[in-house]
Amino acid sequence: MRKIILDCDPGHDDAFALLLAGKDQEIDLLGITVVSGNQTLEKTGINTLNLCQYLDIKTPVCLGASRPLIKEEEVCEVIHGDSGLDGFEFPNLKIGFDPRNACDFIIQTLLESKDKITFVTTGPLTNLALAMRIQPKIIDKIKEVIVMGGSIANGNVTPAAEFNIYTDPEAAHIVFKSGAPIKMFGLDVTRKLMVLPEIIERMKKINNSSSKLFVDLMKVFNENQFKVFALPGGPLHDPITIAYLIDPKIATLKKVHCTIDLSHGSSYGRTNIDVFDYQHLPKNIEVAVDVNVDRFWDLIEDAIRK
Amino acid sequence: MRKIILDCDPGHDDAFALLLAGKDQEIDLLGITVVSGNQTLEKTGINTLNLCQYLDIKTPVCLGASRPLIKEEEVCEVIHGDSGLDGFEFPNLKIGFDPRNACDFIIQTLLESKDKITFVTTGPLTNLALAMRIQPKIIDKIKEVIVMGGSIANGNVTPAAEFNIYTDPEAAHIVFKSGAPIKMFGLDVTRKLMVLPEIIERMKKINNSSSKLFVDLMKVFNENQFKVFALPGGPLHDPITIAYLIDPKIATLKKVHCTIDLSHGSSYGRTNIDVFDYQHLPKNIEVAVDVNVDRFWDLIEDAIRK
Amino acid sequence: MRKIILDCDPGHDDAFALLLAGKDQEIDLLGITVVSGNQTLEKTGINTLNLCQYLDIKTPVCLGASRPLIKEEEVCEVIHGDSGLDGFEFPNLKIGFDPRNACDFIIQTLLESKDKITFVTTGPLTNLALAMRIQPKIIDKIKEVIVMGGSIANGNVTPAAEFNIYTDPEAAHIVFKSGAPIKMFGLDVTRKLMVLPEIIERMKKINNSSSKLFVDLMKVFNENQFKVFALPGGPLHDPITIAYLIDPKIATLKKVHCTIDLSHGSSYGRTNIDVFDYQHLPKNIEVAVDVNVDRFWDLIEDAIRK
Amino acid sequence: MRKIILDCDPGHDDAFALLLAGKDQEIDLLGITVVSGNQTLEKTGINTLNLCQYLDIKTPVCLGASRPLIKEEEVCEVIHGDSGLDGFEFPNLKIGFDPRNACDFIIQTLLESKDKITFVTTGPLTNLALAMRIQPKIIDKIKEVIVMGGSIANGNVTPAAEFNIYTDPEAAHIVFKSGAPIKMFGLDVTRKLMVLPEIIERMKKINNSSSKLFVDLMKVFNENQFKVFALPGGPLHDPITIAYLIDPKIATLKKVHCTIDLSHGSSYGRTNIDVFDYQHLPKNIEVAVDVNVDRFWDLIEDAIRK
Repeated sequence: MRKIILDCDPGHDDAFALLLAGKDQEIDLLGITVVSGNQTLEKTGINTLNLCQYLDIKTPVCLGASRPLIKEEEVCEVIHGDSGLDGFEFPNLKIGFDPRNACDFIIQTLLESKDKITFVTTGPLTNLALAMRIQPKIIDKIKEVIVMGGSIANGNVTPAAEFNIYTDPEAAHIVFKSGAPIKMFGLDVTRKLMVLPEIIERMKKINNSSSKLFVDLMKVFNENQFKVFALPGGPLHDPITIAYLIDPKIATLKKVHCTIDLSHGSSYGRTNIDVFDYQHLPKNIEVAVDVNVDRFWDLIEDAIRK
Repeated sequence: MRKIILDCDPGHDDAFALLLAGKDQEIDLLGITVVSGNQTLEKTGINTLNLCQYLDIKTPVCLGASRPLIKEEEVCEVIHGDSGLDGFEFPNLKIGFDPRNACDFIIQTLLESKDKITFVTTGPLTNLALAMRIQPKIIDKIKEVIVMGGSIANGNVTPAAEFNIYTDPEAAHIVFKSGAPIKMFGLDVTRKLMVLPEIIERMKKINNSSSKLFVDLMKVFNENQFKVFALPGGPLHDPITIAYLIDPKIATLKKVHCTIDLSHGSSYGRTNIDVFDYQHLPKNIEVAVDVNVDRFWDLIEDAIRK
Repeated sequence: MRKIILDCDPGHDDAFALLLAGKDQEIDLLGITVVSGNQTLEKTGINTLNLCQYLDIKTPVCLGASRPLIKEEEVCEVIHGDSGLDGFEFPNLKIGFDPRNACDFIIQTLLESKDKITFVTTGPLTNLALAMRIQPKIIDKIKEVIVMGGSIANGNVTPAAEFNIYTDPEAAHIVFKSGAPIKMFGLDVTRKLMVLPEIIERMKKINNSSSKLFVDLMKVFNENQFKVFALPGGPLHDPITIAYLIDPKIATLKKVHCTIDLSHGSSYGRTNIDVFDYQHLPKNIEVAVDVNVDRFWDLIEDAIRK
Repeated sequence: MRKIILDCDPGHDDAFALLLAGKDQEIDLLGITVVSGNQTLEKTGINTLNLCQYLDIKTPVCLGASRPLIKEEEVCEVIHGDSGLDGFEFPNLKIGFDPRNACDFIIQTLLESKDKITFVTTGPLTNLALAMRIQPKIIDKIKEVIVMGGSIANGNVTPAAEFNIYTDPEAAHIVFKSGAPIKMFGLDVTRKLMVLPEIIERMKKINNSSSKLFVDLMKVFNENQFKVFALPGGPLHDPITIAYLIDPKIATLKKVHCTIDLSHGSSYGRTNIDVFDYQHLPKNIEVAVDVNVDRFWDLIEDAIRK
């Protein structure tokens, strides 16, 4: 079984990364660490507990950073709403947080593990960056970091930058330069994973508690995506990370050099990725350049059915 | 007839912008201003004279800026070779430069013209930027600036920036913020205008002096593109500017906000273009988002046949 | 006689640089070029004509740049008032501008001169920077550039930057890296040249038309300096440039490396000067590190008496 | 008694901050946290243990960050030598580190304390910045942060920046914007605290183990300062922090707005301090603008005698 820690900021799309991770038999979800991002930490924390309780995922949930390292906090209310997970009414919460700080949990879990651990991030990279700076020895215990974030082409918050990286560019810089193996799934592939009306119809037919969660959340998600981007269906960014762990053939990856723009100018937070290798710089990450869209929705359907 | 000034840095692809402009009956080419870019000014100047003499284009050729405003000069020898126009042997040069500096020529021509004038740039924007700062009154005399440069997605010198804008980002900033109507043709469309082997074969069959120029230059151009980008044929960037003036239906343009990255970081010289308009900023340029590739090569063929 | 061009943006302190230059027997004032800075070009131009007429200085006055190269225009109304020269009523203007643009005047004058010419700047460096980029050959015709601007320690517009450099950092960068010999007189010396009440009393006793100009302008200047900086008397920045040409022993200069901060951050426009030479970089300017204050006021008094 | 945590990177001048803190009756030194800076963490850690053992200071010593948050590590070997504390041979080490990470120690100590605690930093601010981001609740438990670092005027690593801030500008940004009360002692005062030969003579006469430490270390320190800055004696930067706690009348402080330059340009790491308050921005720190030099050396002598 593959041991993973999932770091997230739910978030409509984080919800289904969590579903995939929680339902897969080959994934040993050691814990979930929460970060501010799509909404404030207070809200993404509660959303995580609600999702775990509703989906019956039993694993420690630890609160982490309540703001980015350097940049001021900017949440994504226009897409995810006031709660960060608008569109679904969860039952009363009966579970609580693990008392450990995300950073302590990450360091302790990695240092104590005999095996290398996979670290999956579907929010800003603040928690992992802090843990790496507090205790650099954890870097050797990371099997790989599977990142939803960035873009080879253009961004979705600014023309240059994607939300997760834009929200904490310095944290991304720390992780991407850490030496840990990085696999980045950016907008170049997630923009192909559009929750079109027929996808919602398809999942609705499953007619169980998970499908209800999907349908209700995606309805609001799509309405907001339409308001902001005039898209018929929003891209379901985050679950591709876990989908890739379940089936690595789902995406085509390429080794590239990647620099995070830390200039505080109009491209702040851009992942500058040399896909043509014309700069001849050391290749520090693997980036997804293509994705099997049908396979992705099949995996989502499988997980909803479980 | 449409009055134009062509500002260029030949350069293999500039050559065929020049051909299109020189051979079209509806274009009144008032003059050519030269800038450093693909090679040093000394070389791009001589290349311009050689092209004018060989293609029998009679118009003043004025030398302009020998370096960018702020950035240090970086030429593009890997693509255009030591001469800036490697691959063709021109006959002895019998014509010379107009004695006026490009900047003086631009100011004088624009101020003295009753009609508004179209300004076409296929190199860095240094000459026009200098003229705008010396004499801001020229801005109202510009019908539009047709720019080959920039990119909505990623660049070709760095992952962020396209060569013409990267070479002089501050000049591009001056022009793009000047208030003059800007139409930008960037890599998003020019990367579709690939000089594939069948294009070279097609033009070769015309079998005249212009087709010989095309075939010889494109052979070297493609060899270099292959070495740098591993592409089967290089994109013929510059002629789309004149092709658009000949037939505006050739491209689809969209009004957008565009900022030039002046941060001196890893995205220096990027054209940050808000295609989705999620920043709700004033739209200061029109950018080409699609191009009719077949029509483009037909126009090139027409011009070669003339 | 020393041939000079004076580039200025009057401005209360520019007025007395002009007085020194106009009254000195050993200075051949070839022309005055005007730039926006302390106020808009429209106002600094009129102020220059008013000063020339009132002080009986006969030389061409040419208008130049109406804004900085890259930065947006920021004038200094809090110190120099709405007119840029508040505090004195000039008689009706009977003289006019030379028709040449400042940039053309600079290029023509330098290229046509047999002798090298001294260029004195008491405003932003926009005009000289533009001329250098249009016609780099002028650089070899410049004997030296005497700059009022910059600071080794801290600034006067921001904690980092001095007004003349801050207003057009990119122009300063162009001039300081041009290879022309630069002598910089920054706040480190001009802050010692305070127009204290006793200085005003001293000049008032001269009781002629120039002293009246000094007394009236300095009264308003000091009131404004007090409002902004809580200083008992404002520093009379600009005249030290001409004072140094009249008597080079007035200041102690040191060869140093100087970089202009072009980062668009909180230190934008700072002159980073390595006075201790711990960076071991090439020394591209001479900077004034001390000044003979008594000698300065004696020269001002001499000029007022003439 | 005043409870303090001392965060340091010994370093010749850190040594005497430690001496002052360790010998003063009114200071309760809760612990020492170590950071990389003057030398690597490995070396500054050992230096701290050596100093504690030699000076008989009994308190936990915790290792912290081995590198800055974002910037690459740059140590100061030219001043402090290969060991970071060249010039003195310490006896064999019999004491060891506290097992807690500096960050954990800081968070635990602050959260568990009933009283507010003073945090003194004589190195880069990495440890405190990390602790603030991991556990923001500690900010309210900080009585004040006494920082040796920064400069109102010019720097000592670059013309813009002082070593401690330059080494980790982002950490300084985090601490200076945290809301904790900051008192900054920069080069503006520490450059007055020169270890001139007569100071060394004076301390030599005390003739005890502490004076031997002072004399031997200062000899090497001064030799290195002379090589780099051509100064007759180096400025003893760090002890002013503790001297101020012992006798607050030793320095004159002013409330000011301070921004750290994070631009990655030539002023990276500059403390931009608005001493004249012409920007009218909120005052976030107090900065030392003057110091009683005689009183400082008296306090050093007192501590050496103890």
